[in-house]
This record gives sequence, structure tokens and C-alpha cells, in this order.
Amino acid sequence: MEQQKAVQDVYTDDYSWCYGCGRLNKDGHHFKTKWNGDQTETVYMPQPEHTAVPGFVYGGVIASLMDCHGTGSASLALHRNNGHEPGDGAEPPRFVTASLKVDFMKPTPHGKVLRASGTLEEVHPKKWKVHTEVFAGDTLCVKGEVIAVVMPDSFLQNAKNTNP
Amino acid sequence: MEQQKAVQDVYTDDYSWCYGCGRLNKDGHHFKTKWNGDQTETVYMPQPEHTAVPGFVYGGVIASLMDCHGTGSASLALHRNNGHEPGDGAEPPRFVTASLKVDFMKPTPHGKVLRASGTLEEVHPKKWKVHTEVFAGDTLCVKGEVIAVVMPDSFLQNAKNTNP
Repeated sequence: MEQQKAVQDVYTDDYSWCYGCGRLNKDGHHFKTKWNGDQTETVYMPQPEHTAVPGFVYGGVIASLMDCHGTGSASLALHRNNGHEPGDGAEPPRFVTASLKVDFMKPTPHGKVLRASGTLEEVHPKKWKVHTEVFAGDTLCVKGEVIAVVMPDSFLQNAKNTNP
Repeated sequence: MEQQKAVQDVYTDDYSWCYGCGRLNKDGHHFKTKWNGDQTETVYMPQPEHTAVPGFVYGGVIASLMDCHGTGSASLALHRNNGHEPGDGAEPPRFVTASLKVDFMKPTPHGKVLRASGTLEEVHPKKWKVHTEVFAGDTLCVKGEVIAVVMPDSFLQNAKNTNP
């Protein structure tokens, strides 16, 4: 059985320069979001420099994880609604973040793999709410919510004009 | 007249490893937050790799800017309430982020200096709300809010135990 592809693996090249999740951005985090049953999952190991104070993970990196996990999850969800799964040859829709909310419930220990788990809520066919919990090991450390909307055509046009 | 110091310039060494704003974290963003009248300000030039799609700034970097701007602003505010300004020799209080909310009102163009402008609201002596607007050039692109609380002693203890 072929391993499930992440949605970021099948974004078109134009959309693959994101510092958070773009496979063509060599300096970025390379977050990758996949289905896990009817939830979505993004797994990430923070780098040594991603500290808040030594021993704890920097909140901005967790916010970044939640951001790309949110847009990736929305893309997976609309793609599935359209009858597709990553890797079947169809181009997935690309979303942007309208808003991001992060609640840091307890300090996130450094040195553990982080797992963002997303639950999807369709607000409108082009607008999804992604409820996310971030675990460090087995410990729930952060909760959050992303409102993701289908990327406007103007983004694509700009991307095509400035693509390096 | 001596140039005003940023609050991050006078955090003690233990608290200066933050990936967002720590002066000792050589890989980080080095955000620096200062007073501008009775508002606070953090100015940052995104790096070339900090793209969402080419031409626009990655939201996770903006969320990171808002995060450290929020804790830095709260630190400045409580420090001033205590009768101090950065550089007068007193150690400023250090805050952590309890929650972060970011509204991306329009795409943030890349290649312009970002300016986060903060308005302080004291919720409690140890808890501040920081209302922030982020401008790219003259254009308001992002609004957000950070709830910052005085860092618990447990953070410091951990920092002292693991400080590299």
C-alpha cells in the first residue's frame, strides 16, 4: 500500500514557496499535513534554536505550525469533498489564513515531537474552521483555531509574476 | 541624547534565548520593542525566505512578530508602572504569552519594513492585553491581540537548569 501523501507534497509549484510548508522553500519548516481518519495531522520536531526560554518551545513556531496545519487541513477537506485524495492526480485547492487564534495552555517542552491534530468544520464551501490541538508527546499543550479561506486569484497572479 | 533601548536589550541572559526576540539566539529574528510615546513599536524587515506565496509575507512570521511584540510591550508597560525605563539599570519583568489572536486583513506585501504598533491595556498587574496593528509601509495589513502574563518562576528555574 502506497504511503499517504501530504497535501503540501501535491500543491503546484507556484504554491510551494511557503516558509511554513512549502516543499520548494529550502529554509522553511516543511510542515506536512495528512489525514488521520477524519481528522488531520501535522507532525513536527522543533529545531534546537526554536526556544522561548531554554527547555521550552517558542510560541511563534507553534503558531506557525497551527497556521499551515490549518490551511493544509482545509485544503484536504475541500479536496475530499470534491472527491479527491492527495496523490490521485487532481490539484488540491489552496487556502489562506483569515485568522489565527492560539491558546497556550501550558509551556511546550522542547525536544519532543509535536503533533497538531485538526478537526474540520465547514463554514462555507470556500471557508473552513480548523480546531487544532497540539501535543508534545502525550501532553496537550496548545489549543487553537484557524479560519481558512480559498486563496483569491490575485495571489496566484502575483505568484506567477514574481516566482523566482 | 542617548538612544532609547529596546526591552529585549536589557532582559537578563537567562531570558535572552527566545527565537523571536532573544539577543543571544544567533538564529532568531531579533525583534526589538521600544516605546513610541504611550504606544509600543517593533520594527522588522522580513527575510527573503519568509514568503507565503512569492510577493507576500508568511503569516507565521507575522504571528511571531505579534507574539514577541506583545510580551515585550507588556514588559515595558509594567516596568514603567514600576517607575523604570529600559537602560536605567533595573531588571524588567519578563512575560509569557497566554493567548495570541491574529486577523489577516489583507495580504502583507514582501520587501517592505513591517511596523507593529501596540496599545496597552492593563487587565491585572501581572496580566496585560496588547492590541497590535501591523503596517507594511503605510498599509495596515494585520490586527491582533496578545494576552501576556508575568512569567512563572518555574520557567526561570528550568532556564537556569538547562541554559546552554
